[in-house]
Amino acid sequence: MELPSVFARYRVELGEYLRSALPEGSPALLYRMLRYHLGWEDEHGRPLAEGAGKALRPTLCLWACQALGGDWRTALPAAAALELVHNFSLVHDDIQDGDRERRHRPTVWSLWGQPQAINAGDGLLIHSRLAMLRLEERGVAPAKVVEACRVLDKACLTMIEGQCLDIGFEDQREVSVEAYLDMIARKTGALLEASLHLGALVAIDDEPQVGRFARCGHLLGLAFQIRDDILGVWGAADVTGKPVAADIRRRKKSLPVVYAMAVAQAEEREQLLQVYSQGTPGDEEVSIVLQLLDSHRAYDYCQQMAQERIEQALAELAPADIEPEARRELEAVANFLLEREF
Amino acid sequence: MELPSVFARYRVELGEYLRSALPEGSPALLYRMLRYHLGWEDEHGRPLAEGAGKALRPTLCLWACQALGGDWRTALPAAAALELVHNFSLVHDDIQDGDRERRHRPTVWSLWGQPQAINAGDGLLIHSRLAMLRLEERGVAPAKVVEACRVLDKACLTMIEGQCLDIGFEDQREVSVEAYLDMIARKTGALLEASLHLGALVAIDDEPQVGRFARCGHLLGLAFQIRDDILGVWGAADVTGKPVAADIRRRKKSLPVVYAMAVAQAEEREQLLQVYSQGTPGDEEVSIVLQLLDSHRAYDYCQQMAQERIEQALAELAPADIEPEARRELEAVANFLLEREF
Repeated sequence: MELPSVFARYRVELGEYLRSALPEGSPALLYRMLRYHLGWEDEHGRPLAEGAGKALRPTLCLWACQALGGDWRTALPAAAALELVHNFSLVHDDIQDGDRERRHRPTVWSLWGQPQAINAGDGLLIHSRLAMLRLEERGVAPAKVVEACRVLDKACLTMIEGQCLDIGFEDQREVSVEAYLDMIARKTGALLEASLHLGALVAIDDEPQVGRFARCGHLLGLAFQIRDDILGVWGAADVTGKPVAADIRRRKKSLPVVYAMAVAQAEEREQLLQVYSQGTPGDEEVSIVLQLLDSHRAYDYCQQMAQERIEQALAELAPADIEPEARRELEAVANFLLEREF
Repeated sequence: MELPSVFARYRVELGEYLRSALPEGSPALLYRMLRYHLGWEDEHGRPLAEGAGKALRPTLCLWACQALGGDWRTALPAAAALELVHNFSLVHDDIQDGDRERRHRPTVWSLWGQPQAINAGDGLLIHSRLAMLRLEERGVAPAKVVEACRVLDKACLTMIEGQCLDIGFEDQREVSVEAYLDMIARKTGALLEASLHLGALVAIDDEPQVGRFARCGHLLGLAFQIRDDILGVWGAADVTGKPVAADIRRRKKSLPVVYAMAVAQAEEREQLLQVYSQGTPGDEEVSIVLQLLDSHRAYDYCQQMAQERIEQALAELAPADIEPEARRELEAVANFLLEREF
C-alpha cells in the first residue's frame, strides 16, 4: 500500500515552501530542533534526504483547493501552516507521553530535554501562524486571511482540548466508546477538517460548498485516527516505527481496547482493567490483551467503524461540483487511509 | 510605590473583556487550569476577587491607543491577546524552570502535572490568537487585523527565542552582559514592544509614529526586566511572592550576577563560578554571593542600566504628538517600572 499519487504532485513545492517558512534563525538551537523534528536534519545538524511524515494535511488542503478550480499554489501558506501545527502537536505530545522515539528517531525532548522541547513546540505553533499570514503575499484578500487564521486557530484549540481529554483518559478506569469518539473528533478530526476547509476557502467563496469539504475532512480524520489505533495494536513494527502492540504496552485507551472493555464479560473485563491500571505490562499480559481483542473481533469492529466514516466522507462530497479526476484522487486517498500499514 | 492611576482606568473593562475571550469550555479541566492561572479561581474552582498580575502589557497597549486619540475600547482585543500571550509564557516558563510557586500560589504544573500544564499554556496561546482576531468585530479593517496578528506573532516568536537563550544560559559557565541584554531584549522586550506597537497601530495609520511607540515599548521592556532582576535578588519576599534572593538560590544568571562575574577579580570570580556550577546553594553561599554583589555595587549598576533605558524610552516619544496628560501618565508608568517593589 503506497501513498496515492496525489501526494507526489505537491511534495517538492510544499517542501520548498515549508523551508522558506522556516529560515535559519537565532538561537541556532531552536531552529536546529525544528529542522530535526521535521526530518530535514539529523541530530548533529547534517542534512537528510526529505523525510518525516506523509504530509497528509497539507496534501488534502492543496487537493481541495485544486479540486474546486483554485490555483493550489495560492494555498501553499495554509498547507505549510497545517503541517507546522501538526508537528507542534507531535513535539508536545511526545513530551506529554514520555515517548522517546517517533518515526524510528529519538524525539526532540529525549535529545534536548523537556524545557527546550517545549520551546520547539511553541516555536512550530507560532511559525504556523506566520506561515498562514503569508496568504496575503499570494493575493488572498485580507478578510479571507483573517477567516483562514480563525479556522486554523479554532481547529488548534479543539485539538488541544482533545489532547487534554486524551491525557485525562489515563487516569480514568474506563472510557466509553462515545467519549473516545468525542476525543478523537477533537484531537485528530479538527485539523483534518481544517485542512479541507482551508483549501476550499482559498479556492471559492461558496460557504455551503466549503462546509461540505470541512465535514468531509472531519470524517476522514476520524477514519485516519481509527486506522492509527489499529496500527498501534496490530501494526508491523518495521513499517510503523513503533514497537509491536505499542499502544497496549503504553496502556493507551485507544479504540480496540475501549471497545473490548465495553463488550467483554465480567471476568475478562476485570482482567483488562487490571492490566490497564498497573505499570508497564509484560509480554504475557500483552498477549492476554491481544487474545481478548481477537476473541471480540476488535480489529473488524474498528475497521468497520473507519470504513463507515470513509463512506460518509465521500458521500459529503457527492453533490460537490468537482472534476472526475479530483474525485478519483480523493477516493484513492480515502482508500489509503483505510488500508494503510504506516 | 503603588500602581499608577492609568492602570485603574482600564482594569474593570479589561477584566470583563478577558473573561469574554475565555468563556466556559470543554473539557472542564482545561478551562479550570486557565481560570486558575489567571487568578480568577482557586484550585478548587471557587471564584476569587480579581487577582493575578499587574496587566502591564494590556494597560500599555490601551494607553498607547488612547494617547494617539484612538478609542481605547477598540484595542481591547489586542490588549486581551497580549495578556494571554504573557500568561502562556508564564505557564510554560514555570514548567521549564521547575518553579512550584508564582504569585504566592502553586503553579499550574505543580497542581495538575506537566502534561496538562503544557496543554494549559498551549491553550492560552491559541486563545490569544482568537482574541486578536476579534479586532474585526470592533470595526478594525481586515488588512490591519492581519498586520496586528503579524506583530503579535513576531513578538511571540522572538519571546520564545529569548526563552530558548535563557534556558541555554543554565548550561553556560559564563554569560556576558551583552549576551544577557540580547536575551532580555527578546524574552521581555519583544512583548512590551508589541504592546505599544499594537495600541498605536489600532489608533493611527502613521508608520513612523507607530514605530516610535514600538521602540519606546521595547526600551520600557528592558527596564522592566532589569528591575525584575533586581527584585529577584534584593526584593522583599512578602511583596514579590518569591523567596529572598530567589534568583541566587535558583542560580539564575540574571544581570546582577552576570555583571559581577564580568567585573570581579580572579579569586572572586572563581568563587562565583563555583556557586553557579553546583547544586542549590545554601544560606552561606547565598550570603557570599550577596556580599560579592554589594562589594561591586551591582545594585547601583543595574538600577543605572534600567534608568538609562527609561530615559531613552521617554525620549523616543518626545517628538510624538500626544496629549500632555497622556505624557504624564507614561512618565508615571516609567517611574513605576524603575522603582517598583513588586
